[in-house]
Amino acid sequence: MIDLLIHGRTFDRVVDALQPFRARIRPLVVRDGEITAAWGPTAENPVQPEIVFGNTDVYFGDAASRDTFIQTVLETKKLRWFQSSATGTDRALLKTFGRQAEIYTNAHGQAVAIAEYVLWQTLDFLRAGPERRANAEARAWRRLSARELSGLNWLIFGFGEIGRETAKRVRLLGGYVVGVRRTPGPDPDADQIIGPGGLHAALPAADVVLLCAPLTSETQNIADAAFFSNMREDALLINVGRGALVVESDLIAALDAGRPAFAALDVVAQEPAAPDNPLWAHPKVNLTAHDSPATRGSKQRNDQTFLDNLKRYLDGEPLQNIVPKSDLE
Amino acid sequence: MIDLLIHGRTFDRVVDALQPFRARIRPLVVRDGEITAAWGPTAENPVQPEIVFGNTDVYFGDAASRDTFIQTVLETKKLRWFQSSATGTDRALLKTFGRQAEIYTNAHGQAVAIAEYVLWQTLDFLRAGPERRANAEARAWRRLSARELSGLNWLIFGFGEIGRETAKRVRLLGGYVVGVRRTPGPDPDADQIIGPGGLHAALPAADVVLLCAPLTSETQNIADAAFFSNMREDALLINVGRGALVVESDLIAALDAGRPAFAALDVVAQEPAAPDNPLWAHPKVNLTAHDSPATRGSKQRNDQTFLDNLKRYLDGEPLQNIVPKSDLE
Repeated sequence: MIDLLIHGRTFDRVVDALQPFRARIRPLVVRDGEITAAWGPTAENPVQPEIVFGNTDVYFGDAASRDTFIQTVLETKKLRWFQSSATGTDRALLKTFGRQAEIYTNAHGQAVAIAEYVLWQTLDFLRAGPERRANAEARAWRRLSARELSGLNWLIFGFGEIGRETAKRVRLLGGYVVGVRRTPGPDPDADQIIGPGGLHAALPAADVVLLCAPLTSETQNIADAAFFSNMREDALLINVGRGALVVESDLIAALDAGRPAFAALDVVAQEPAAPDNPLWAHPKVNLTAHDSPATRGSKQRNDQTFLDNLKRYLDGEPLQNIVPKSDLE
Repeated sequence: MIDLLIHGRTFDRVVDALQPFRARIRPLVVRDGEITAAWGPTAENPVQPEIVFGNTDVYFGDAASRDTFIQTVLETKKLRWFQSSATGTDRALLKTFGRQAEIYTNAHGQAVAIAEYVLWQTLDFLRAGPERRANAEARAWRRLSARELSGLNWLIFGFGEIGRETAKRVRLLGGYVVGVRRTPGPDPDADQIIGPGGLHAALPAADVVLLCAPLTSETQNIADAAFFSNMREDALLINVGRGALVVESDLIAALDAGRPAFAALDVVAQEPAAPDNPLWAHPKVNLTAHDSPATRGSKQRNDQTFLDNLKRYLDGEPLQNIVPKSDLE
């Protein structure tokens, strides 16, 4: 019997899908800080899960369950496989889990939700959302003109799953996409792919610049004063990657100087953003609380990634989305 | 030589495209309330245009040019063809022009812009835009969850060009579209088309209800108390058609009672909306100034419709988008 550590809320969503594996796995379900074997005999104490599914139900759920869950993972001696619902591997805790497990797999189920966040922020910018809402507040019937997604030039820095899901939508809506990634070459979901060396030369053509690269020593602080000076005055910057991709003091200076026109940020260097963070109140910034991925769809897609991998695991097949150990150092 | 009445701003956009017709047409260009022949001999006075291109440059431009333009159209004895940039024919002035001209053609170039407005309002609703902006104003880092476009059920009342352009985008983004129009039957851009008789039965399934039908005696006041009582509590109503499709007092009562959840309105019964219109300040309403079509792309697409029809006119071919006289009574 293979022990699987899983959060109660996750278990409730996937219980039907787990039934076919009932003879082979024992779900150890964390609720209100307590661990209970869902089916059959109780597990040894302390529990030693071989498989862990760690997701947002854990990290954003009640504190007692989160602590119990994390402590159990850290103390297990048998951890063979950790399925994460996160894409990035720059968080210290996930790195620890990843090093501890024989196999660490990530997930991309939140890419669709983040791509929709990008569309939302872009449309709000193109439609002059802040000005329109100010007019409504002033009860002023003023006809404003808007820009269209149709015909827009996009520069997507980081062409992984988020970049790809965004690019698909943008192109369906009439946009032109240049993607930036380490390995250039054609891609079915971009009009053009360039290497990081071409980034600054590509900035002046972009109406929207989307940052969705992982945080590495090469991408940290990529969006600095020189970067912004190459952007258009009417361009939008969106960051859904990591806050540290952006030099925030340079961004504020650039916005104040009028280039780019606006920044939509779902991530900041220090999270949670403190009340005195100047980005909150900047008139050219829309700051959200790193919740662009938070949809039911993201959970369902990540549950499915886990379920698909669980079947592979039990059937002795290679898992999908294995993160190389070198990315977990 | 065929006289063409055209606004100065429009002429500046299409002057290159008009060059091939230079031997056959004389553009009479309205600027600052004055009419000047752009090329060749001056027209007789008063000018008697045979062709008129009436568009937003006229209706939303300077008052002197608007008055001159309209007066000239009303006084011409020779009006054979009026190309409008509007889709609807319920405006009194357009009806007058349409009856006066031998041929009245409309345009649908604004459908793309309106479809993008619909996406904007829908994403702002799904992403809890008002709550997120309130959190930012309070400098509060609160993680909210959002709903996705992916998997949403749409009911589109009026399946003309606006409905179609919206439906195309919605389906590309993972939505399911039921369209309502007078003639049911399959349509390549909808999952299902139903007749007006099926409207109320279809409302309970819809996450988003979009009103984009023309205003007729059958559609006036279609969205009334009974209509809203069939909508979902978590549904969004969007009106980009005409204000009089909605019984506004019923809408306010329905929102206050909690069904539907929110209304995005680009049109109201009395335009411009007066400062004391209760829709301005309603917390569950986003009211914009009938400017969803106002983009450069709309102008360019409508210019192209005019240019295509002009070539047909000069070549003696039948025009496109002819509005039946019965729609102009």
